[in-house]
Amino acid sequence: MQSLGRHVLAEIYGCRFEALNDIKKVEDIMVNAALEAGAEIREVVFHKFSPQGVSGVVVISESHLAIHTWPELGYAALDVFTCGDRVNPWDACNYVAEMFGAGDMKASEVKRGLMEQPEERLVANM
Amino acid sequence: MQSLGRHVLAEIYGCRFEALNDIKKVEDIMVNAALEAGAEIREVVFHKFSPQGVSGVVVISESHLAIHTWPELGYAALDVFTCGDRVNPWDACNYVAEMFGAGDMKASEVKRGLMEQPEERLVANM
Repeated sequence: MQSLGRHVLAEIYGCRFEALNDIKKVEDIMVNAALEAGAEIREVVFHKFSPQGVSGVVVISESHLAIHTWPELGYAALDVFTCGDRVNPWDACNYVAEMFGAGDMKASEVKRGLMEQPEERLVANM
Repeated sequence: MQSLGRHVLAEIYGCRFEALNDIKKVEDIMVNAALEAGAEIREVVFHKFSPQGVSGVVVISESHLAIHTWPELGYAALDVFTCGDRVNPWDACNYVAEMFGAGDMKASEVKRGLMEQPEERLVANM
């Protein structure tokens, strides 16, 4: 089975309150993470919540990066979804964790869009 | 362990080309999915690719919905991430699949932001 994309879901713990609560800083880190990984940015949108927390997304040609922060818990939920072989989602993921000064990260990769390859389809039809 | 959020990752197959390639239709379906599930919309951003395909995100107070479509394959990758107990991500997910006339959907739920509860921490310290 061939997959169209790779999706890294990362739980980032032990981050600094100030970094997670600063919308400009969060946006800069996410945009730079996309660029560091070699992605092509298409749209950027971030939102600051009251009293705290930031949510935002960077839409890239290769899919997207998304983040939601809970500054009071030192926690951020990060998604990096990339299609194609050119961009490695782990590059962006590790960059974000480093920039937030994360104490701990738990991350896993999920394959997205599993498609039968032509040979597999032929075998199934025999 | 208590979780902050629920994230449904859905692979939606067998959709109509025209629906998946129409940015206005994709955006409407995603916005309505958020509203149907009772979410509060904060930001909406969609992008049309050439020659085909749409990517877009609806940032909600409860986290986000994201979609990437491959009209030529009849496939869409859908994410619905919600925090709190008020919004059920499956409501939005099922709505999107239905609106695209999906022939098949494979979806799973991932818990995001697992946190130790105070009692657990106390027990661990004893």
